Amino acid sequence: MSTRAFVLYSRKGATAPIFSLNDLPGSGGRMDLVARCVTQALWLSHDLRENVAFYAVLNGPPDPPKTIGFFSDSIKRLSLDERNVGSWIKKALEKWEREGRKAQERGEEWVKVQDGIYIARKDVVPLVKELKEMCNFKLFVLHEKGEDIREVEDFGDNCCFILGDHIGMPKKVEDYVINKLGAEKISVGPLPYLASSCIAVVHNEIDRRSASG
Amino acid sequence: MSTRAFVLYSRKGATAPIFSLNDLPGSGGRMDLVARCVTQALWLSHDLRENVAFYAVLNGPPDPPKTIGFFSDSIKRLSLDERNVGSWIKKALEKWEREGRKAQERGEEWVKVQDGIYIARKDVVPLVKELKEMCNFKLFVLHEKGEDIREVEDFGDNCCFILGDHIGMPKKVEDYVINKLGAEKISVGPLPYLASSCIAVVHNEIDRRSASG
Repeated sequence: MSTRAFVLYSRKGATAPIFSLNDLPGSGGRMDLVARCVTQALWLSHDLRENVAFYAVLNGPPDPPKTIGFFSDSIKRLSLDERNVGSWIKKALEKWEREGRKAQERGEEWVKVQDGIYIARKDVVPLVKELKEMCNFKLFVLHEKGEDIREVEDFGDNCCFILGDHIGMPKKVEDYVINKLGAEKISVGPLPYLASSCIAVVHNEIDRRSASG
Repeated sequence: MSTRAFVLYSRKGATAPIFSLNDLPGSGGRMDLVARCVTQALWLSHDLRENVAFYAVLNGPPDPPKTIGFFSDSIKRLSLDERNVGSWIKKALEKWEREGRKAQERGEEWVKVQDGIYIARKDVVPLVKELKEMCNFKLFVLHEKGEDIREVEDFGDNCCFILGDHIGMPKKVEDYVINKLGAEKISVGPLPYLASSCIAVVHNEIDRRSASG
């Protein structure tokens, strides 16, 4: 079965467990946005999707970068609401504070938070490079000026969609991913959508093709 | 300019301000789901959409029904995060407790909560009937077995999409809206999506047609 991955670049997302679950937008650096994307990426109406990976690449203060990976096939005890997703992000950042350095000394990159949730000190370019080179993902950057997603001929068996938050990805990152890693620029529609809306539309397009093919 | 309306039927959504903003899923009767739908209905990446109305029809305990209307053109001080949307729903229910009875005695149906947010003691059938008969909305019921949304020929100038929460609409309501009010059954895709995902896909489809038309 094919795998879908989403990589969300969060420019301001907190990189230590210093934020309040009562204030994900402010103290979390728009962690509400990150949480909504996790939910749109992983969930159907009553179940988790199969074979979806979601990576939140956090680049806010105080200790960037951090990437938290959510893997739909093994995850447990995750609810759909922003507060619950935010609490797992906070737990992941707490875990990193306790165990990150030791794991790095042992040469381990990812620290397990719970089944299906992992954290690493990793930025977006190395992450996307690995997804392409080691896991054979076909890369797509969501971009208002990209090719219409409905016109994309082939998403490949494993497809990875890279998107920015409300601020967007740094130009340097976007250029590297497109020019060096060969990511295709695609657009989901004629308006500037919420990142979570983009994820819903991407899933819908590929679901339709999987169902008819 | 054409108007889009969304009517979300929430079977368990709390109908008095008795829930905690720290527990929208539990004490709020899946108010997290309602809040996510509000956000997907009203927002683009940096702005509120124009000409969108969202109605949350709450039918949970202790005092159903209540309908809260959000109108994108006049709303202020609403953020995208679930907690903030939930807090406005709670404020609306508080306002009803203070002023609902008096308003009804004066023959007024809707009580203003703030610019662009109103509450009424109204259930889904009368609401949808009014939208059709008084405001000339073309009605669509989102349904897994409906016609593919991409095949719908004409959404009309003013279109209204009616959808259920995770439990779904009562069969009686669905039948009435389809058989008596002439709503078309449409599907957004081959899988059972989150209500918020459905809203994102509906907007995207109509945005595309508006952009190309």
